[in-house]
Amino acid sequence: MTFRLGRLRVEMPRDIAEYTSSLKFDQEIYREVIVINAVHLKMLARLGHLSGDTLARGLSALREAYGNPLEKGDPRLEDVHMVVEDYLVKAVPEAGENLALGKSRNDSVATAIRMRAKSGALALMESAIVLVEALLVRGVRDAETVYPATTHHQTAAPATFGFALTHYASRILSALNSLVRAYEELDQCPQGAVACSGSTLPIDREWLAEQLGFKRVLAHALDASSSRDFAVDILSAALKLLIVVSDMAEWLIHDFTQGLLDMGDEFCSTSSIMPQKRNPVLLEVARTKASEALGEVVRVASMIQRRAGGYVLDLQQATPSIWRLLREAESTVRVLSTLVGTLRVDAEAALRRCGMEAGMVELANYLTLKYGIGFRRAHKACGKIARILAEKGLTEEALLRVCEEEGIPAKLTIGEVSEILDPRRIVSNYATLGSANPSEVKRMVEEMGRRVMELRAWVSENRRMLEAVVERAFNAQAL
Amino acid sequence: MTFRLGRLRVEMPRDIAEYTSSLKFDQEIYREVIVINAVHLKMLARLGHLSGDTLARGLSALREAYGNPLEKGDPRLEDVHMVVEDYLVKAVPEAGENLALGKSRNDSVATAIRMRAKSGALALMESAIVLVEALLVRGVRDAETVYPATTHHQTAAPATFGFALTHYASRILSALNSLVRAYEELDQCPQGAVACSGSTLPIDREWLAEQLGFKRVLAHALDASSSRDFAVDILSAALKLLIVVSDMAEWLIHDFTQGLLDMGDEFCSTSSIMPQKRNPVLLEVARTKASEALGEVVRVASMIQRRAGGYVLDLQQATPSIWRLLREAESTVRVLSTLVGTLRVDAEAALRRCGMEAGMVELANYLTLKYGIGFRRAHKACGKIARILAEKGLTEEALLRVCEEEGIPAKLTIGEVSEILDPRRIVSNYATLGSANPSEVKRMVEEMGRRVMELRAWVSENRRMLEAVVERAFNAQAL
Amino acid sequence: MTFRLGRLRVEMPRDIAEYTSSLKFDQEIYREVIVINAVHLKMLARLGHLSGDTLARGLSALREAYGNPLEKGDPRLEDVHMVVEDYLVKAVPEAGENLALGKSRNDSVATAIRMRAKSGALALMESAIVLVEALLVRGVRDAETVYPATTHHQTAAPATFGFALTHYASRILSALNSLVRAYEELDQCPQGAVACSGSTLPIDREWLAEQLGFKRVLAHALDASSSRDFAVDILSAALKLLIVVSDMAEWLIHDFTQGLLDMGDEFCSTSSIMPQKRNPVLLEVARTKASEALGEVVRVASMIQRRAGGYVLDLQQATPSIWRLLREAESTVRVLSTLVGTLRVDAEAALRRCGMEAGMVELANYLTLKYGIGFRRAHKACGKIARILAEKGLTEEALLRVCEEEGIPAKLTIGEVSEILDPRRIVSNYATLGSANPSEVKRMVEEMGRRVMELRAWVSENRRMLEAVVERAFNAQAL
Amino acid sequence: MTFRLGRLRVEMPRDIAEYTSSLKFDQEIYREVIVINAVHLKMLARLGHLSGDTLARGLSALREAYGNPLEKGDPRLEDVHMVVEDYLVKAVPEAGENLALGKSRNDSVATAIRMRAKSGALALMESAIVLVEALLVRGVRDAETVYPATTHHQTAAPATFGFALTHYASRILSALNSLVRAYEELDQCPQGAVACSGSTLPIDREWLAEQLGFKRVLAHALDASSSRDFAVDILSAALKLLIVVSDMAEWLIHDFTQGLLDMGDEFCSTSSIMPQKRNPVLLEVARTKASEALGEVVRVASMIQRRAGGYVLDLQQATPSIWRLLREAESTVRVLSTLVGTLRVDAEAALRRCGMEAGMVELANYLTLKYGIGFRRAHKACGKIARILAEKGLTEEALLRVCEEEGIPAKLTIGEVSEILDPRRIVSNYATLGSANPSEVKRMVEEMGRRVMELRAWVSENRRMLEAVVERAFNAQAL
Repeated sequence: MTFRLGRLRVEMPRDIAEYTSSLKFDQEIYREVIVINAVHLKMLARLGHLSGDTLARGLSALREAYGNPLEKGDPRLEDVHMVVEDYLVKAVPEAGENLALGKSRNDSVATAIRMRAKSGALALMESAIVLVEALLVRGVRDAETVYPATTHHQTAAPATFGFALTHYASRILSALNSLVRAYEELDQCPQGAVACSGSTLPIDREWLAEQLGFKRVLAHALDASSSRDFAVDILSAALKLLIVVSDMAEWLIHDFTQGLLDMGDEFCSTSSIMPQKRNPVLLEVARTKASEALGEVVRVASMIQRRAGGYVLDLQQATPSIWRLLREAESTVRVLSTLVGTLRVDAEAALRRCGMEAGMVELANYLTLKYGIGFRRAHKACGKIARILAEKGLTEEALLRVCEEEGIPAKLTIGEVSEILDPRRIVSNYATLGSANPSEVKRMVEEMGRRVMELRAWVSENRRMLEAVVERAFNAQAL
Repeated sequence: MTFRLGRLRVEMPRDIAEYTSSLKFDQEIYREVIVINAVHLKMLARLGHLSGDTLARGLSALREAYGNPLEKGDPRLEDVHMVVEDYLVKAVPEAGENLALGKSRNDSVATAIRMRAKSGALALMESAIVLVEALLVRGVRDAETVYPATTHHQTAAPATFGFALTHYASRILSALNSLVRAYEELDQCPQGAVACSGSTLPIDREWLAEQLGFKRVLAHALDASSSRDFAVDILSAALKLLIVVSDMAEWLIHDFTQGLLDMGDEFCSTSSIMPQKRNPVLLEVARTKASEALGEVVRVASMIQRRAGGYVLDLQQATPSIWRLLREAESTVRVLSTLVGTLRVDAEAALRRCGMEAGMVELANYLTLKYGIGFRRAHKACGKIARILAEKGLTEEALLRVCEEEGIPAKLTIGEVSEILDPRRIVSNYATLGSANPSEVKRMVEEMGRRVMELRAWVSENRRMLEAVVERAFNAQAL
Repeated sequence: MTFRLGRLRVEMPRDIAEYTSSLKFDQEIYREVIVINAVHLKMLARLGHLSGDTLARGLSALREAYGNPLEKGDPRLEDVHMVVEDYLVKAVPEAGENLALGKSRNDSVATAIRMRAKSGALALMESAIVLVEALLVRGVRDAETVYPATTHHQTAAPATFGFALTHYASRILSALNSLVRAYEELDQCPQGAVACSGSTLPIDREWLAEQLGFKRVLAHALDASSSRDFAVDILSAALKLLIVVSDMAEWLIHDFTQGLLDMGDEFCSTSSIMPQKRNPVLLEVARTKASEALGEVVRVASMIQRRAGGYVLDLQQATPSIWRLLREAESTVRVLSTLVGTLRVDAEAALRRCGMEAGMVELANYLTLKYGIGFRRAHKACGKIARILAEKGLTEEALLRVCEEEGIPAKLTIGEVSEILDPRRIVSNYATLGSANPSEVKRMVEEMGRRVMELRAWVSENRRMLEAVVERAFNAQAL
Repeated sequence: MTFRLGRLRVEMPRDIAEYTSSLKFDQEIYREVIVINAVHLKMLARLGHLSGDTLARGLSALREAYGNPLEKGDPRLEDVHMVVEDYLVKAVPEAGENLALGKSRNDSVATAIRMRAKSGALALMESAIVLVEALLVRGVRDAETVYPATTHHQTAAPATFGFALTHYASRILSALNSLVRAYEELDQCPQGAVACSGSTLPIDREWLAEQLGFKRVLAHALDASSSRDFAVDILSAALKLLIVVSDMAEWLIHDFTQGLLDMGDEFCSTSSIMPQKRNPVLLEVARTKASEALGEVVRVASMIQRRAGGYVLDLQQATPSIWRLLREAESTVRVLSTLVGTLRVDAEAALRRCGMEAGMVELANYLTLKYGIGFRRAHKACGKIARILAEKGLTEEALLRVCEEEGIPAKLTIGEVSEILDPRRIVSNYATLGSANPSEVKRMVEEMGRRVMELRAWVSENRRMLEAVVERAFNAQAL
């Protein structure tokens, strides 16, 4: 960078340059920076600072660069912006020499990050939608497969496998809402804010925003050029998604270990020494990603806080977290989608786990409603019955004794109790919105399916807008 | 809790009970829990499980409890739910004994947390709106006060104090958007999901949601009763807000230290030993709150992740973070609002800091546009001029030598350069949307003012909904 | 604080004072601050700035305050230092008026924090030692109880319950090492560093350190008065301990859920609705404490970083994390110690889980060593055998077929294989240092027992030093 | 991995393999794994399971691999352990086929991580020692250069530049202590613990530890093979170091911005648009590294907690944090060392900042000691004087008025006050251990210099031990 030797007297030694340069992670935004520069050239032409011919040659050179991967190059060029300018100076000097007129790295990098993050967020949403669909498809198929619902990791009540799976679909949809909202925060264009306070050149920021595929201009030049608050939205939305993933992975590992379900061998490894092992390694890796996300949130939030004034180079260091996290999250939900289809329930084992104890609240309800005694008393009696069941098995005698002790005027028989506690019966008796009743599970699947379709449409629409940007950018006619 | 001794054989010793009980932080949701129980009693009456008279007496007893603060009571009661049930059993046994019929602590606590968090979020938003207004009022008043815009903590370009202040207003408005969205996540009612899988009693969840002031039911019973994903939304929205606060506090401290601005003595302390000190202590405390927020995000996210199945007691431990953070954030933006009004700019010092060097890009623009030389060359020449200015002061001779060295066909005079670099002139020449031009700052203030009004209306509307809940809850007629 | 109105013109309004004051958490260091002031009075007397009589009366007044809890008082007094000074000014004006001579809140609070943290760290270590002892006692008792060792949450190899328990003892001892080292960092005295750069009064810092029970002076006045780096050591040592606790709690919950072990009813709760539940609530709360610790590490590290120069009020906000974490960690290890004694293994279930599959590596070893075939080949064959075992049960025919397929010249019989895979035999054949062989477990218990005794002695010695400080501090004779 | 198809039926598809494989970060421990395998071969030979000739050929093949970088290879090989085994099976089948006899990936990877982390920790310590030395050298040189000590970012008292610099040396030495202690935790050998519970082969773990350059065996097989608690020690020690670095960087940026000091142009960049900018970019990047460290601590601690039983694949994901952080920390302290030498103080500006106000506590001390009035009263009077100084300049009349108002029987003259407040005089009057008195700064430099020498010796000794391991490992004679 020869202009460095205006204000400064010496070049940066290679080790210092390598330490401070962002080139090691700038390949992520290489293409976005080129597009921004192409659009900026057009703006200069619109303002009369570039001839039509220079513009055409400049765009053509940039289009070529767009197709080629970023070469690492000399770290003394500091960052991708200088690499692109350096390239254009050599290819079309009249264009390159003026590329920085009315444009700063501060607004350009903020714009490039938002463009790239939008694209990454869409990819993540696409994969998350596929995972939701996989869960819904399986949810319907297993809407009637009796399976325990747990609290405190123990069987709490009879439910179905479809109910358990759709629970994660419901939560991923909520995380998708957060991603949509984070996207809206990203979708504001900083370009034209220049270094910090705008420009005396009459740059048309609304035109820039439109050309670069943004729905809005982010007006305030200091906010536009220096804030990274949007990182909190996108990183925490990804964190929210990965917390659901970690819960789902933990649950699958837990029930796999207990023999309630199984998955395809392709998601397992064996041990290099213990021949019997069948380790659910994919799920183990997947469940760590929430921690990965949390690490990135901390890294970024701690870095960007307590900043006086406008842009500082600290911000450059925060960006890689966004790329890493979007990529990790995307690949995680993608591989999980393929796993969902291979899940196999051991229906017998699952039904066994929903045996008498599991539905004990139904017996308490029964005693309350039929004999008009307080629920609290019925609950305590059923607690005793459950203890007897767990410790030595139930007899009619024991049932009677408990009722007597608790002052319940019932003559329960084992048959009566067994019927009340039959898990299939309980499941089909669930009467509330959102319950594990198979018909309700199917209704929820349909409702969630409608939301999936809305999200798909939204993602496609935004994807199209991003793709249109590139097509238009290098077209010298499209002024 | 006598029912404990159904399933279990012994009471919990006091130290274990204290360790596991949530009573130490349950005072936060005491009132919400009472309201939920009142509405649940009505639901039982609607289902015919409670007489009108019992309902009336139950509601009356609960209304009385609502007015009194939670007594710590015996930790062996485990949590606020049991305290309220215990109270009602004593006051109106027929109601109390059935209070747990078709209701679990799992759905109730999730509902109470959401209700309380909604209320806390509204309080935070109200205070944040006041802070935005304070910044906008000052922004207009100082829209023309020349003040440096900085990058890398150094003067980057001439701007105005109003521009600098409104920058934070713009960012707080973005954080308010995130808070609104987090509120929408909170605003889904879990009540009626019961422990994990719904109930065989035909509880009307839509009616419950309406009575409890929620816009929607959160359908899936497992999601409703056990997920705390909404905590990520609300905590990270508060984090986002406090990052802006920490930046603003850092900036004010920075410029206070440099003598560019001053604040009221009431926000400062002196030293107990060094008599000359005037320490901006309020701002120092305020800037730590982003770290506080980050700590809470980590605490909660790390706690709630990797959870197999439904509710676990871990979740109880996560909740206090929400109360602490909402309260800290609210008090922080509130005290800052009062500080903004006392800010005094040293206009002379600020103008001096915008002296010739600050506007150097304008000279480069001038050389480029007037002499048709590349901006890059002009930039380098201006870099040299800036270096001379910084090191030994500028002479006409030096100006000419630099132009010659860089091949610029200009005969610059000191007068010409001074005029170009005059900060007042530069500021009024800014031509872009969102720039530091005083007229643009005023336009942005108006635009942000409109957003403030929308937010105020939204907050009021939601506040009204919450208040209506309490009025209705204890009214036995409102079935 | 009347002296405030020297440099400043107005008092602090109550809300600002409450926001910035540290009085809400200063009760933690109230006694330490009094002791420091007592010792400082003596130093002033040694330097001739206080008469013997004033000293005696001053010490007597401070001794009285020491015995009484800190009253919250007026937040406008800012902090505990001013509360104590204010008290002494009223009680013994000649002493109180000079209390700030040669002493700053900066060095005093750093000293008080270190003193209090030392005391809290010792309490934590004492409880952690008790937990280790409980684990060692149970380790010996169950050194021969066959119990599965797991990897990937699945049975990996036969081991014993004593082996599993002592694993946590070993790790807690390592965490205790980290706590000892963190203590050594704390054990350096800042007193006499004054505000930032020392004093022109010839304060004897070595005498101060000795009187205040420190092993060393922390010499550099700026380091002493403003760094909180020691917080990283003590918080991360507590984090390390709580990670072990979270692992142990998770393991116990896991195996409790699977019916391998049980604990006392006093550590469980039941559900308020599901009568059969027996929830291991103590362990659920205990396993969240690592997250709590991590939140505090983030809060503090993010707050104290990026600080220019000496003391800032941000540091005041960091301190409560230390008190909270030491207290939480201490109560957690304390309640866990009582739980360890109540653990009951279901020996039959545990032995069943160590059935044939579990020891499969031993069969591979056997094939390798007896038939001289490569271990990798033997491993693969045993993998096939394990699959057959898991899927349909083993037959002699299947054994032969596998050997044939893998080219192993062995004619295995079920009896031979059963003997090789007998878990009791495997466990007693373990031949390596640190293995699950009962005799090796007992040897490790003895070795760890020796380390426990060393740690006990170290803690007692340091406890004695701290206690001596208080006895000496108020004795006017002890100059 | 053909042995996979013993227990499992299908290969892993490439995308699943890529997702779960650790090969993407295993190059870090490639060489350590080879060394471990070499030593394990020797152990097998010692036990009689390998002939001398096979051993010699096996070692020779491994030595060759040691010299070549790890090829990424097929992710289906899962990790570096399988890559090395696969290689040896092809090169020396008799050795390769038995490589997994009595060895697991669990103990080997734990051993390799500790070896590699030890080496990385030594490199970090070496660079940190160089930084301390640079600070001490400059500390002596500028021991007498008057420079402000600050609190709350404002001038608090006159000190010297050497005093300010050595403050960071003192803190880095404390961080080095923490690194030494973390190293001791690393320096325990897990090899021979095998998968989780030891081996029935009589592997000599003490011999293994010695051959692999460890000071101790980590006995308990479950602790050895699965705990990553040592990561907390090493990561938090690096965090502690980087907090000091972030403070130092912030301070240098702060005082650079205020014109008190300057640094070499090679550590600065200019702006691509604003020609006058001279941005301290190296320091901006350096100050973010504490956040980087904090992110890694959170990532790892959150990942490794709440683990039931022995090894899980989650642990694999935690390791890269160690490599990243050690490398980032090392390069950061390295580049900072070169910067320290280029620092230039503007001695005049620094002296000006230590003008009258700065030493005001000395005037209070003077009034107290000379006139026998209480310090608190003197402090208040000096506060008034400081306010007058700051607001309109001091006159003799004002001095007298203040003394009168505060009842101080002194007739202060401007000359007298000026002498008392002369910063050079104050600095040379500092009388306490650790103060900013130039002679005391020099004494501290000497003391810290001695500690540096001890650390150097310690690092060299440990470095030698690590180097000896490699030399010995491939020598078939060294049994």
